[in-house]
Amino acid sequence: MQNFVLENPTKIIFGRDTIKQIGPETAAFGQNALLVYGRSSAVKNKIYDQVARSLSSAGVQIFEHGGVQSNPILSHVQQGIKLAKKKKIEVICALGGGSVIDSAKAISAGTLVEHDVWQFFKAKKSIKSTLPLTCVLTLAAAGSEMNGGMVITNEKTAEKFGVGNKKLNPKVSILNPEITFTVPRDYTAYGAVDAIAHILEFYFTTLDKNTPVQDRFMEGLIINIMESCERVLAEPEDYQSRADLMWCATLALNGWTAAGLGMVGFPMHMIEHSLSALYNVPHGAGLSVVMPAWMSYKNKENPGKFAQLARRIFALDHEDEYETARQGIKKLKEWFVKVKSPVSLTEFNIPASDIPRIAENALGLAKLWRLRGYQQKIIENILVSAL
Amino acid sequence: MQNFVLENPTKIIFGRDTIKQIGPETAAFGQNALLVYGRSSAVKNKIYDQVARSLSSAGVQIFEHGGVQSNPILSHVQQGIKLAKKKKIEVICALGGGSVIDSAKAISAGTLVEHDVWQFFKAKKSIKSTLPLTCVLTLAAAGSEMNGGMVITNEKTAEKFGVGNKKLNPKVSILNPEITFTVPRDYTAYGAVDAIAHILEFYFTTLDKNTPVQDRFMEGLIINIMESCERVLAEPEDYQSRADLMWCATLALNGWTAAGLGMVGFPMHMIEHSLSALYNVPHGAGLSVVMPAWMSYKNKENPGKFAQLARRIFALDHEDEYETARQGIKKLKEWFVKVKSPVSLTEFNIPASDIPRIAENALGLAKLWRLRGYQQKIIENILVSAL
Repeated sequence: MQNFVLENPTKIIFGRDTIKQIGPETAAFGQNALLVYGRSSAVKNKIYDQVARSLSSAGVQIFEHGGVQSNPILSHVQQGIKLAKKKKIEVICALGGGSVIDSAKAISAGTLVEHDVWQFFKAKKSIKSTLPLTCVLTLAAAGSEMNGGMVITNEKTAEKFGVGNKKLNPKVSILNPEITFTVPRDYTAYGAVDAIAHILEFYFTTLDKNTPVQDRFMEGLIINIMESCERVLAEPEDYQSRADLMWCATLALNGWTAAGLGMVGFPMHMIEHSLSALYNVPHGAGLSVVMPAWMSYKNKENPGKFAQLARRIFALDHEDEYETARQGIKKLKEWFVKVKSPVSLTEFNIPASDIPRIAENALGLAKLWRLRGYQQKIIENILVSAL
Repeated sequence: MQNFVLENPTKIIFGRDTIKQIGPETAAFGQNALLVYGRSSAVKNKIYDQVARSLSSAGVQIFEHGGVQSNPILSHVQQGIKLAKKKKIEVICALGGGSVIDSAKAISAGTLVEHDVWQFFKAKKSIKSTLPLTCVLTLAAAGSEMNGGMVITNEKTAEKFGVGNKKLNPKVSILNPEITFTVPRDYTAYGAVDAIAHILEFYFTTLDKNTPVQDRFMEGLIINIMESCERVLAEPEDYQSRADLMWCATLALNGWTAAGLGMVGFPMHMIEHSLSALYNVPHGAGLSVVMPAWMSYKNKENPGKFAQLARRIFALDHEDEYETARQGIKKLKEWFVKVKSPVSLTEFNIPASDIPRIAENALGLAKLWRLRGYQQKIIENILVSAL
């Protein structure tokens, strides 16, 4: 286990009938609130009305900043910052999934500085302070509701970049699984894939070989994500299964599993971010394409950990460790197929001839994230095996 | 999964060479510090010097309150409160295990009120505010370093009572596994037993049958506690194993596994607290006596959960569910024997004739904790099976 500092002050309010708490929780931080939300689902679910009513009842004045798209874009964040500055916003309230929460985080940091918010993403400036943020989560996927990470796409430069800073942690996040009853089956599956990817990035990229506590925690989460996702797809309004999936997605990226792993990387996200930036594919869908390809590449270096996953998640145990590992990756890919998440670039109509361009884009992120050993050719080879 | 609110703001600083951070971390909360510690180990380990030096270097003035005993007593807490009031203490720094941290918590709450601190334990008064608390942990066991619980024994009335309040959460806890290298083998094992007991109280007393996420988390921790404890007993200065055991003991009672379980009870602790209060037996040692007895009693009501534990921890699987469960309890008891933690009252020289008196004491706690269904006779029967 590596040395670590763990501090996650986000207050989670989880369960049925909890939306009404957003008003008082938000009012505790200020009276002028910027309400950030997405394009349709928030309104469609009637959640918007509940949130707006709760905020108003608590004496909070709402300024609207709707229309966040998935793979949220910089220009929309910049508009939000402009509005927040103009209206002297004191607190940001996000109603949505990872895209909305990430946009709200970027606004919360960008409102308090004079320079362009993109400077934070290019690592030219560091975040010193943020406006307080409260959230009502509508999608089990990104985990942004309980961490200090955010990912935004600069649509002009086709860069999908991320920043982590504990000042970005929401103050309060309300997680009501009932809200997710209406999430369509494709996005439910993509959310589960995203959560699995977060765990596997940690699981496979830690350089520490002595992390048995974290390993069991992560393996338990993966089993639960797969089982609850299957139950949800069979019965979308099963509260318990939606609750399990929602809580697992939060736990997958709230820092609890990562504590003690030391430096970890996000190589699968690095490659997927390029797919999202260039083709606007859903993040989870891109990940289920990249994951088996990257895992097969990495398995050649370190089959031990891949074999452990195969044994503990899929109860596989061949004589040969590499073969056990290989079968485990195959099983995971089959599971993606089972929940109808894509497993090949072809399914996105991305031709082989595009691979150099994707790899080049990913390379930019590899450099920014200091992911060593990912030359253009290696990324291309991984992508070729994902065709 | 049940509705829950989760908020654990304690900052954990974990790893080698971390003691020196106690000075600056404590100084952030005030200049006048009460340093609470135990009877010998703190001084023996030379940790005391490191802590005192770090505090002094950070400009913190130290007022000493040493001599906390295991199963910490009320009169010593009251002395600490008197001193803290007199010296206008602004921050409490605890150097020790659960007994020291619990004493420090009681002082942190009692210093800010005029009434006797025991009123909090009798539920006559509720905690409104506390002095900030920083900790350097020296024993993997109680979990007090990352939660808002405390247990103190009123030696005059032979009552060992506990209180939980989020205001009691330490601000910062430093966990350096190296400090625990010198913990003797008996107390190492008792600490592991204590951590297992914390998990099993949650695991078996939740009334919710849909907690698969929490179940896997708890099962993973138990496996890791057992494995790391065995490795530590074989090699007391194995850093990785000490680290695993230390982190697991914290996770066993920091609220993470319990989130979503709804109301849980502490029936095994209820009975053990009477053993500690009446005979001053080490807490973990008392628990390894009570646990198999209570589990065998409870297994008759709800073999399903006990069978799940037997399957997932001990890979047992008999045709009959009750028999699977029974074998699992037997295996756990055998493990206690293996690590040389007591499994019978006889090992404490407690005669059968004392059982009514122990049960009567436990009954007081059952009422205070609102543990239903524990009449005198039932507690006696559990104790008889622990003879």
